[in-house]
Amino acid sequence: MTTEELVVQIHKKKSFLCIGLDTDLEKIPPHLLDEPDPIFAFNKAIIDATHHLCVAYKPNTAFYEAYGVKGWQALEHTIAYLNSHYPELFTIADAKRGDIGNTASRYAKAFFEDMQFDSITVAPYMGSDSVEPFLEFEGKHTILLALTSNAGAFDFQTQKVAGQELFLKVIQTAKNYKNAKNLMFVVGATKASYLKEIRSLVPDHFLLVPGVGAQGGSLEEVCENGLTKNIGLLINSSRGIIYASPGTDYAEIAAQKAEALQKAMAALLNKMKG
Amino acid sequence: MTTEELVVQIHKKKSFLCIGLDTDLEKIPPHLLDEPDPIFAFNKAIIDATHHLCVAYKPNTAFYEAYGVKGWQALEHTIAYLNSHYPELFTIADAKRGDIGNTASRYAKAFFEDMQFDSITVAPYMGSDSVEPFLEFEGKHTILLALTSNAGAFDFQTQKVAGQELFLKVIQTAKNYKNAKNLMFVVGATKASYLKEIRSLVPDHFLLVPGVGAQGGSLEEVCENGLTKNIGLLINSSRGIIYASPGTDYAEIAAQKAEALQKAMAALLNKMKG
Repeated sequence: MTTEELVVQIHKKKSFLCIGLDTDLEKIPPHLLDEPDPIFAFNKAIIDATHHLCVAYKPNTAFYEAYGVKGWQALEHTIAYLNSHYPELFTIADAKRGDIGNTASRYAKAFFEDMQFDSITVAPYMGSDSVEPFLEFEGKHTILLALTSNAGAFDFQTQKVAGQELFLKVIQTAKNYKNAKNLMFVVGATKASYLKEIRSLVPDHFLLVPGVGAQGGSLEEVCENGLTKNIGLLINSSRGIIYASPGTDYAEIAAQKAEALQKAMAALLNKMKG
Repeated sequence: MTTEELVVQIHKKKSFLCIGLDTDLEKIPPHLLDEPDPIFAFNKAIIDATHHLCVAYKPNTAFYEAYGVKGWQALEHTIAYLNSHYPELFTIADAKRGDIGNTASRYAKAFFEDMQFDSITVAPYMGSDSVEPFLEFEGKHTILLALTSNAGAFDFQTQKVAGQELFLKVIQTAKNYKNAKNLMFVVGATKASYLKEIRSLVPDHFLLVPGVGAQGGSLEEVCENGLTKNIGLLINSSRGIIYASPGTDYAEIAAQKAEALQKAMAALLNKMKG
């Protein structure tokens, strides 16, 4: 999917919501555990209930890999279901991969070609030859970790490198990588005050923003500093939506939570136009 | 496996060689493609031929994940075979993971508990709460990327943060993480000149050193700057061993290549004693 197609979807749905599918067998309603593939059953119900309220889904691959071959199958079922039933949705493999050359190409092939994800999250620590192999894929997007929403982000990401925080150095360096137009960046909502500076470096790139809701980030503050004329934002919520109810009504309640966010986004989009 | 047990194995075998199982269907001898699990068949033959010459094996998980569920099964077969037939060998999941809190714990559980790897490689970019969940596991080791052997390492790792290269800052910060005794560090052989400074920061931690051989690093230079009285080094070679012959004699030729490295290591260990 191109970013232009993504922007069309955002305007159509008046939503730039991404729902994180951090599906955990210990947290899903117990009645699902009798299903042949409980993780997929949970995801399918969430997707069917929320697909009209969001523009993207983001499975965090750690939750799937934790269950070995069965988890991997659940991930494959989930992405296949999304691609066959809701091809208008943008899909993100939140894999935070980072490895070099041939190995990076292997990951790119697995996620972009075999599973047909639209995008993957990638860690920047190993530099250009760990990122550029992902950027080669046309119509696919590489979402580079810049400033994450966790406490540990202060260990290295906000340290000054030649007078500039490391995460800004990452963005500045990466925007000169080959095929940099296929880049997006992860910027945590809990650190929205940095968004203005990030926007001055990358006025046109999409930012994937986790940390709204459960982690305490403010949707309004993120939008104030991050929205562009082409939107340029995907706001992710995971736990706050998918685990809003522990009962058999989980999909229905998830849709209510997603709708509340979608309505807030619609209001912000209207305000931007006005 | 404890580091003490690893050191005993190193002295017994006069080897601190780690063999990288970067197993690629496009590179393994074609006759193996008829096997039900060609990747495992290749690995098993390499392991059976070389296990007495090395102390560790390191599958790079990207190569397995690239083949989806089948690749994941091949990885599970490989680690199960190592643990059941050669429990004296140290095993490294070269996964370069990096994610926070609960997600990191999921990865740790998958690699340490379910698959029973002795160690995993982890990326430092997200800081303490992406590393400490791995460090909690007793008798397991977290191998943090510090200075990698690729060209892109110069993008960020060698940039100065308050007068100190980022990779030194990473080592300095991480050695104060909770359960830091379970840490090892990745330091590329192609940048052996930095090893002296690294050793002054972490005199007792093991270093996993890729880049000897195919990538141009020198075994002698690495040992001169990196060996300690408890050895403290694992030297990895992947392609230079496992793909030394493209024919049906691949395992035999791999053993010859591994033996050449083992003999060089034995000589260096003898020299150290003398």
